[in-house]
Amino acid sequence: MDKQFDSIQPIKWQVNRLCLLDQRQLPLQQVWLDYEHSDDVAAAITDMVVRGAPAIGITAAYGVVLAARHAWDTAGVNWKQAMTAPLAHLSESRPTAVNLHWAIERMRQIYMTLPDNEPAEAVLLKQAHDIHSEDIAANHAMGKLGADLLAEDNVVLTHCNAGALATGGFGTALGVIRQGYADGKISHVYADETRPWLQGSRLTVWELQQDNIPVTLQAEGAAAALMASGQLDWVIVGADRITANGDVANKVGTYMLAILAKYHNVKMMVVAPTSTIDWTLHSGDEIPIEQRAAEEVTMLQGQQIAPEGTAAVNPAFDVTPATLIDAIVTEKGIVLSPSYDTMKFIK
Amino acid sequence: MDKQFDSIQPIKWQVNRLCLLDQRQLPLQQVWLDYEHSDDVAAAITDMVVRGAPAIGITAAYGVVLAARHAWDTAGVNWKQAMTAPLAHLSESRPTAVNLHWAIERMRQIYMTLPDNEPAEAVLLKQAHDIHSEDIAANHAMGKLGADLLAEDNVVLTHCNAGALATGGFGTALGVIRQGYADGKISHVYADETRPWLQGSRLTVWELQQDNIPVTLQAEGAAAALMASGQLDWVIVGADRITANGDVANKVGTYMLAILAKYHNVKMMVVAPTSTIDWTLHSGDEIPIEQRAAEEVTMLQGQQIAPEGTAAVNPAFDVTPATLIDAIVTEKGIVLSPSYDTMKFIK
Repeated sequence: MDKQFDSIQPIKWQVNRLCLLDQRQLPLQQVWLDYEHSDDVAAAITDMVVRGAPAIGITAAYGVVLAARHAWDTAGVNWKQAMTAPLAHLSESRPTAVNLHWAIERMRQIYMTLPDNEPAEAVLLKQAHDIHSEDIAANHAMGKLGADLLAEDNVVLTHCNAGALATGGFGTALGVIRQGYADGKISHVYADETRPWLQGSRLTVWELQQDNIPVTLQAEGAAAALMASGQLDWVIVGADRITANGDVANKVGTYMLAILAKYHNVKMMVVAPTSTIDWTLHSGDEIPIEQRAAEEVTMLQGQQIAPEGTAAVNPAFDVTPATLIDAIVTEKGIVLSPSYDTMKFIK
Repeated sequence: MDKQFDSIQPIKWQVNRLCLLDQRQLPLQQVWLDYEHSDDVAAAITDMVVRGAPAIGITAAYGVVLAARHAWDTAGVNWKQAMTAPLAHLSESRPTAVNLHWAIERMRQIYMTLPDNEPAEAVLLKQAHDIHSEDIAANHAMGKLGADLLAEDNVVLTHCNAGALATGGFGTALGVIRQGYADGKISHVYADETRPWLQGSRLTVWELQQDNIPVTLQAEGAAAALMASGQLDWVIVGADRITANGDVANKVGTYMLAILAKYHNVKMMVVAPTSTIDWTLHSGDEIPIEQRAAEEVTMLQGQQIAPEGTAAVNPAFDVTPATLIDAIVTEKGIVLSPSYDTMKFIK
């Protein structure tokens, strides 16, 4: 697909540092932050400078490169031992997405084969670049597969941001939407604003506007009425972790959409690379769900929007059972009616 | 019930003017605004200084008093004719809630019987006070009836604000919650923040905190996960208009909750005075749904939260079919499994 519908990349390696587009400041400002230390990269993931399961995996891979450089500079031939603490720090930066652990483990497997008496930065940087470019290639592959599931002039709803901003580029759910729009299979996109962090209004709307894909924003509460109106054909979302039976952890509110979609005979598509699948977990009950600070609900952009001292629950994710999902689209193929048995085809 | 759990009244008549607690400024400031002209009252309803179906009915009734004073002052014996324009203005201030029309019509029926050559203000003021005090009495009656439906230590979820702030006092859904908490039948309340206007975080949390009723705030997207956890017993909400078959228009997101509740075997209670019922409409399809400005979704407290020029849909209400509702609680009694046939018992 030409670049007409694909202009955004949130993660760049420039000369000797990692550069992240600060997603906390979108859409009002486009600010790039530079990173030279892996602990700062871990903090950037926790603080959501960068977010989205594939994007934090790629970011962590570059974080490992920075950790290796620092370990060599400070520990010399003992650099591998010196990697333990910074890699643990990166691993703990967000608890739910599995791509983070997958990327760090892939980097670790590489550097464990390297000699102790040479710097590993160059080899690890190549590996991080590979993880990054493989992610973009996977997104293009998923875009084509997912778009094949659509009919003509479909109207779709997406939740949170599973776009270029959540990945190495192109996006997972928004990759399918980019491809579907380019192919004339999608005529309009609705975006949930996605409280509390407003990934929908701040990121998805911005990203689709950059690429001239028509998008209408709505509050989460309006999704059911949109479905009842009969206008909607598909809900298309990403995933933060998928278990062996096809259960999907994704941004809180996804489970709600899956129930509403089933009730209204709207179809539900989850788009995620196979690095999102945690084959060690049998079902979604085993996925740790990140609980974030109450202030994300009670404050907005520094303004108090609830009374002082308000108690709030703020789960970042929820789990959608496989039985509510029509299709899981991966770079290795589509799983229709996901279950323990059907998921095996993409293992 | 003693005043321990009931300290808030949003509408007051003082000396010769209407005083409204400005709900746009809660919870950060408690500002009272004074009104002496009915057109200003109509604007206050449109601009949501006051909101909630029963509260805007009561407010409109006081608006009719102010219209009558002005009509007598300017038109003398032709004052009844001079009422037409200001009453039309009041009627058009919000389109969905039927209590507004009910209250204006009740006031009109009174003044049409009055002589042309005397001021009507005193008689109409008494009627407006009656509407106001009858609403509070109805809320207490509904509170008792609704609480009777609860078991022990129930955990409930409410949406928007159907509290003292949405009524003459005590509240509809929050009236049941106040009574249920006082009776030991409710142990904890969850409140949806209720985007875009944040009635949940700004009003419901504030109101329950004032009365020391334990409440936890959440984004709408977290409701499904809360239900899946098995903690929740009831969803309890108000209504803006109920049709003859028991379909309910209420704050956007209510329909979502009803579907989620049915899916999780959580019970769904709607609490509203019979003035909310529009017997002229056969079903919810006939209810006009107010579409409000996109800026309510794209801006928050003067801050841009979506890109410039974002298209947004912002329906203020949605319609929940009667089949998804376990109980409609009115001051005349409870309708279980509402339908055209069962609704007749409270006609």
